[in-house]
Amino acid sequence: MEDYANAKLVEEKVFKDPVHRYVHVRDQVIWDLIGTKEFQRLRRIRQLGTTYLVFHGAEHSRFNHSLGVYEIVRRITDDVFRGRPEWDEKERLLILCAALLHDLGHGPFSHAFENVFQTDHEYFTRQILLGETEVNSVLKRVSENFPEMVAQVIEKKYPNELVVSLISSQIDADRMDYLQRDAYYTGVSYGHFDMERILRVMRPRNGQVLIKSSGMHAVEDYIMSRYQMYLQVYFHPVSRSAEVLLNNILKRVKQLNKDNYPFIVEPIHFKAFFENNIRLEDYLALDEYILLTYFQYWTKEQDLILSDLCSRFMNRKLFGYVNINPEEEPERFGRLKELLEMAGVNTEYYFYHDCTSDLPYDFYRPGKETTRLPIFLLMPNGEVRELSQESLIVDSIAGRIKTDHKVYYPKEIFQNPSVDSEIKKELQKVLFS
Amino acid sequence: MEDYANAKLVEEKVFKDPVHRYVHVRDQVIWDLIGTKEFQRLRRIRQLGTTYLVFHGAEHSRFNHSLGVYEIVRRITDDVFRGRPEWDEKERLLILCAALLHDLGHGPFSHAFENVFQTDHEYFTRQILLGETEVNSVLKRVSENFPEMVAQVIEKKYPNELVVSLISSQIDADRMDYLQRDAYYTGVSYGHFDMERILRVMRPRNGQVLIKSSGMHAVEDYIMSRYQMYLQVYFHPVSRSAEVLLNNILKRVKQLNKDNYPFIVEPIHFKAFFENNIRLEDYLALDEYILLTYFQYWTKEQDLILSDLCSRFMNRKLFGYVNINPEEEPERFGRLKELLEMAGVNTEYYFYHDCTSDLPYDFYRPGKETTRLPIFLLMPNGEVRELSQESLIVDSIAGRIKTDHKVYYPKEIFQNPSVDSEIKKELQKVLFS
Amino acid sequence: MEDYANAKLVEEKVFKDPVHRYVHVRDQVIWDLIGTKEFQRLRRIRQLGTTYLVFHGAEHSRFNHSLGVYEIVRRITDDVFRGRPEWDEKERLLILCAALLHDLGHGPFSHAFENVFQTDHEYFTRQILLGETEVNSVLKRVSENFPEMVAQVIEKKYPNELVVSLISSQIDADRMDYLQRDAYYTGVSYGHFDMERILRVMRPRNGQVLIKSSGMHAVEDYIMSRYQMYLQVYFHPVSRSAEVLLNNILKRVKQLNKDNYPFIVEPIHFKAFFENNIRLEDYLALDEYILLTYFQYWTKEQDLILSDLCSRFMNRKLFGYVNINPEEEPERFGRLKELLEMAGVNTEYYFYHDCTSDLPYDFYRPGKETTRLPIFLLMPNGEVRELSQESLIVDSIAGRIKTDHKVYYPKEIFQNPSVDSEIKKELQKVLFS
Amino acid sequence: MEDYANAKLVEEKVFKDPVHRYVHVRDQVIWDLIGTKEFQRLRRIRQLGTTYLVFHGAEHSRFNHSLGVYEIVRRITDDVFRGRPEWDEKERLLILCAALLHDLGHGPFSHAFENVFQTDHEYFTRQILLGETEVNSVLKRVSENFPEMVAQVIEKKYPNELVVSLISSQIDADRMDYLQRDAYYTGVSYGHFDMERILRVMRPRNGQVLIKSSGMHAVEDYIMSRYQMYLQVYFHPVSRSAEVLLNNILKRVKQLNKDNYPFIVEPIHFKAFFENNIRLEDYLALDEYILLTYFQYWTKEQDLILSDLCSRFMNRKLFGYVNINPEEEPERFGRLKELLEMAGVNTEYYFYHDCTSDLPYDFYRPGKETTRLPIFLLMPNGEVRELSQESLIVDSIAGRIKTDHKVYYPKEIFQNPSVDSEIKKELQKVLFS
Repeated sequence: MEDYANAKLVEEKVFKDPVHRYVHVRDQVIWDLIGTKEFQRLRRIRQLGTTYLVFHGAEHSRFNHSLGVYEIVRRITDDVFRGRPEWDEKERLLILCAALLHDLGHGPFSHAFENVFQTDHEYFTRQILLGETEVNSVLKRVSENFPEMVAQVIEKKYPNELVVSLISSQIDADRMDYLQRDAYYTGVSYGHFDMERILRVMRPRNGQVLIKSSGMHAVEDYIMSRYQMYLQVYFHPVSRSAEVLLNNILKRVKQLNKDNYPFIVEPIHFKAFFENNIRLEDYLALDEYILLTYFQYWTKEQDLILSDLCSRFMNRKLFGYVNINPEEEPERFGRLKELLEMAGVNTEYYFYHDCTSDLPYDFYRPGKETTRLPIFLLMPNGEVRELSQESLIVDSIAGRIKTDHKVYYPKEIFQNPSVDSEIKKELQKVLFS
Repeated sequence: MEDYANAKLVEEKVFKDPVHRYVHVRDQVIWDLIGTKEFQRLRRIRQLGTTYLVFHGAEHSRFNHSLGVYEIVRRITDDVFRGRPEWDEKERLLILCAALLHDLGHGPFSHAFENVFQTDHEYFTRQILLGETEVNSVLKRVSENFPEMVAQVIEKKYPNELVVSLISSQIDADRMDYLQRDAYYTGVSYGHFDMERILRVMRPRNGQVLIKSSGMHAVEDYIMSRYQMYLQVYFHPVSRSAEVLLNNILKRVKQLNKDNYPFIVEPIHFKAFFENNIRLEDYLALDEYILLTYFQYWTKEQDLILSDLCSRFMNRKLFGYVNINPEEEPERFGRLKELLEMAGVNTEYYFYHDCTSDLPYDFYRPGKETTRLPIFLLMPNGEVRELSQESLIVDSIAGRIKTDHKVYYPKEIFQNPSVDSEIKKELQKVLFS
Repeated sequence: MEDYANAKLVEEKVFKDPVHRYVHVRDQVIWDLIGTKEFQRLRRIRQLGTTYLVFHGAEHSRFNHSLGVYEIVRRITDDVFRGRPEWDEKERLLILCAALLHDLGHGPFSHAFENVFQTDHEYFTRQILLGETEVNSVLKRVSENFPEMVAQVIEKKYPNELVVSLISSQIDADRMDYLQRDAYYTGVSYGHFDMERILRVMRPRNGQVLIKSSGMHAVEDYIMSRYQMYLQVYFHPVSRSAEVLLNNILKRVKQLNKDNYPFIVEPIHFKAFFENNIRLEDYLALDEYILLTYFQYWTKEQDLILSDLCSRFMNRKLFGYVNINPEEEPERFGRLKELLEMAGVNTEYYFYHDCTSDLPYDFYRPGKETTRLPIFLLMPNGEVRELSQESLIVDSIAGRIKTDHKVYYPKEIFQNPSVDSEIKKELQKVLFS
Repeated sequence: MEDYANAKLVEEKVFKDPVHRYVHVRDQVIWDLIGTKEFQRLRRIRQLGTTYLVFHGAEHSRFNHSLGVYEIVRRITDDVFRGRPEWDEKERLLILCAALLHDLGHGPFSHAFENVFQTDHEYFTRQILLGETEVNSVLKRVSENFPEMVAQVIEKKYPNELVVSLISSQIDADRMDYLQRDAYYTGVSYGHFDMERILRVMRPRNGQVLIKSSGMHAVEDYIMSRYQMYLQVYFHPVSRSAEVLLNNILKRVKQLNKDNYPFIVEPIHFKAFFENNIRLEDYLALDEYILLTYFQYWTKEQDLILSDLCSRFMNRKLFGYVNINPEEEPERFGRLKELLEMAGVNTEYYFYHDCTSDLPYDFYRPGKETTRLPIFLLMPNGEVRELSQESLIVDSIAGRIKTDHKVYYPKEIFQNPSVDSEIKKELQKVLFS
């Protein structure tokens, strides 16, 4: 047992990575985990879901990102923490495994999928780690309770908060990787910050990771990158519009199944999800390849809503959008819905309100979030201070970003000759004035 | 008609592109082509096939690349050629369309697929351009014979060789894009050259594109990048090993169909290919999402060869390889095959010889290839000289690269306890000494 | 005359530039200006003064920067403004010349030099433009009053404020060049922003340059770069410490001259400055090469203050520093001075207080500064809004940066055996607690 | 003694470097060496001499480069060699010092200066290391014979060739730094190669540095960069033209001194060089600041040759050039000289032939040079092979580059009205046809 935990590859393996240049693997355990089919499956799930429909370069998978998070943690432990009194080298393999596997339970287009089918990728991460999987076999060879320990780190329940915070804090390896990686593949010029500098000023102290205050400006830059990436990429209204389509496709297919609609191709992969009785193998059998294959089948279905929504998704005919907050403008919102219905639009599937606070991203907040620690600076005199107390920039944006509300609708309606021109005129007014 | 050819968007559209920073679209025709479903389908076909199994970043699609080729040609025509006496502005829209659409007929994992099913992506490009497609509708709005003209440019049959050479010469927009793009996504440090400089020294002359000799060193750098990308990426033995698997999966499924094997899930998308009676819609219905979905189904098939090969592909359990040229070492090759068969290996599907000259890539060759013009320099005195006459570097590598031969086999055989240890020992000897 | 203004070079000249890749020159006038000896002199004056003593890469000259500002303005006029109704193509040559020549009057280590000798680089810019110089000869060939017009643009007195604002606003070509250039040569990772994007959204309107609001995030990034460059580079305490030395060297030499001190090598180049009777040729004869040559001579002078200060500067033995604001801590400041004097330090030359508000750099301020316009956004509905009203980030940092106060002293005092240990102890206390 | 060799700084010092991002110093000895005045003097000597007159960014000093070479060697020893059986950790400090100090003896514009005054920077490096200098004091604190050992490593006479080869082989830290650094500051797009990869495959073996064959392509790229940098930058005819001026200025001033010419400003710094009786302090007193100060003085001298040559240099009025190899075209060369003399040109100072083989740069040569080892690959089977035997690319360019011959002359002659038009016509013919 002990041996396996410390087993090293005869020769270090290297993955060429566009973001970190190289990902280095020396541990046999890590190498074996990468080779498992559950980990290889992450190649078939995109990191940024539908964002590729706006930024065509964003076709990278969660496999990519998972290796990146692993590599960052490896550099922190091997190059920065090793040998420091507050760092326990025995935690090294645990945090490397947790870093590599933290996204293991993600399914295809997680956000919309979880919304419609009430699944939870964190639950499935635990299932994969502890269930009958290749990943579990590898982890168990380290020690009987190692899979459980990895699960706890990922779930932020592991007692040593220092270990947890490496992948779950406001400046963890997870975010540092995805900001840079998503910037790289989308090609936006934001998203760059001096990670090397940040890593070098990280210090294990008081059971968490502190940042030496001399590195504060690099951290400010990181916070700014995060801010820009959210506004420019993650909250991009066009990719949210694609999410709306996705959501409504899944909602429609769920409804049709409930109505015993006779599908041409039986959606066998969805059965378990319809019945809310999902075994691990059902979950693992799904990926974005399967999903898009179904979408393609469904473009041929007789149900016009399903086939139209799928065609729209496959061929990128997305909804238009307009800024409306239903709570602030209930009448405008209501009138818009009414008019669309008068124009023959099924507002159950062709009308949608979303807001950015529903998205799985957030800005920096000085207070401790439910789950993520704020960033603490280690001052030259040994004091510890929360970042926004020291940084004017961070103070100014921390938690102050307004939620953005949008309403989506089929913009083709104005080209539809069968819609009354008076209705069109009024729609124009409600939408754009 | 005329109007549509010259119609400009009210506001220029811009795609963020990691390689060229921005792709600019002002022409209504181009914008409409990008929106067609045949063009959107290219999002579901990877630019580098199986290479992502070696370079995990190489997950980019042909959609990506097609926009890039378009953008390079746009810059050449709008920023370099415009206004020059030998350039006819009327050819501009034609070459832009041809650049954008030149890969339209590519199917999933083209190389292996075409090898097994004898299809031809160039044939299907023409079908898409001229058949009943959205692309054809757009092109026909320009003029009745415009689709045919675009097809001719792509097929290198268009009378104005200057136009053809922009996308089909030894230094065309196609190669300049894919070298840079593939380098970007794989993350290798080769593949960079000073394209901006090359574009600035391109001159339309004598019905082709000449390079002012002052730009020779930039061209040398391009040739070297190409050389390095071929050796490092395109000819990478591990990605060729994945191609072998792919090839044998398709070969097996074809054989099983011939033998009336009862598939659990009927491979309806393959029917037309089995019967070699492929309509355009059959062809367009296939993409890599569908293919990998079948591969996943097939991992559950009773046919052990098919299910094993598919499992290997999905979970990246690739074949090992060794350098053997069967013509130079017929005995060693024969003995290897014999030993594998003695060890119970089905050499029809688990043993394969390939060589790089079968790959759809080549090095620079000074003579005119069947299809691609060599690179000509325009000397200060007006003379025209072929590149390798002037450049020592290019002369030294032009056409001199040796073909690389490899033989693939299942390396797990050495861990298989049921194989006789004597056979293993001899296999070791044949393979590695 | 007219002809010369429009004369183009037979072949475009290109300078390889690390920041903008290429600087393009087509105008004969620009080419001729670059060849003048007054412009070539800028090669002998560093862009960042003493900063190279902290960031060793910062050895670039004002020649470098001047070409860069020219190139940015050239791109704005030729690629963005050309053809727009609010842009008068006749202003093009004028603004190009002003951009190229805007720093022409800078002398060696301007900041300290002007401080001690009360010279003014803006005054000398005008002298060079209008006096008997090669630059004047070139400009006069354009038209008799062209030199005067160029001077007015640089002095922000030219009536067309749009022209002025290209080189003198809160987001002008001057700052866009130096931020990027100084970042490049120092090697810091801040200082990058998407200039290409900013240029593309600049619009001439209402006699000034507006930024289309779609480019706001790129401008935020620019503001942040500026903020980081100031804190990290321009306000770096060590380079300010070198400025203090420089200042005191010049102050000492001025005093010695007043006292009729017999210099070993007569400081002939300084005579005019001592007597405050400076002809243009005296001014032009000085550069950083001459200055450092004198400093080297002076290391051998008998005056111990002068020779020590010069040795310190040449061999980078800089003063230490501590944060004290004399107004807030008058007693601590006074006590420190007292103790240093008790320790035998000549506080006239070895003790100095400076603050960042004395430096020739500032942060973004929303109100109109004496000389520089704020940044205005052009909203989609045609409205014009000042940046900090729209941007939370900018609002948060605009004008809110605190002035930083430092006091410099010779830190070697603690190694000096002849200083009483009680004094040392108390100095320690005053300085560090 | 022993203690000083191993003394570490309390806190690691870091220099921000544009090429290597950071230069790390932990050793007290290295820190002290950097602070010596002999090392600080390297800030006043440019790395690329006159190249800044062609590539305006190339203003970087030898100080810059010296830190870079140190950092590369530090990475090799600390990150790659440490712990390997064939590496003796006791050599570490020695090679770090040698790397840092290898260019210590360079004077201003070494190439031309050494040519005229027959000095030798390698001789002066030894003098500085062993003479009465601050550098010597620091080195002697390590051990009595340490200065001598450092000198031997730099002179390639140290018995352990492995140590020597780190800074003096065909792929040493010296070249790896200058290729990248010169590319960075000039802004050319060549000069990039994957140094990180090369460092990772370096192996100490058989008393030299071998390159694992898996890194061969990175080495090919390095060789190509070198080739391109030589052709594009180091052999650039315009910077050679500036060297010619420099050479002739020095030659003229030497001659004038011999003729007892009465200089307005006595060239005291040159006395020792005129008399060829150069003490170390004379040598160290010279730098490019002093030299350019004299050149500026000399523009006012009555000797027309000296003042004209100096004006030309300061104001960048360089000679024209033409390709002539006097040995191949003796008649053309002779006729050109004759015609220039007929036109009144003093061919002693205004006519010059140079060839690239006189330059201190060379291409890769497979055989062992007098001083530099070729590159050896370590094959998987343990064999050692010289690079050009394995690499087609390298074989093709190794030692095959032709020497380039140029002749320089004052191109203004054609604008000189006093020169007979017949002579001009014939000059045109000889030069350009």
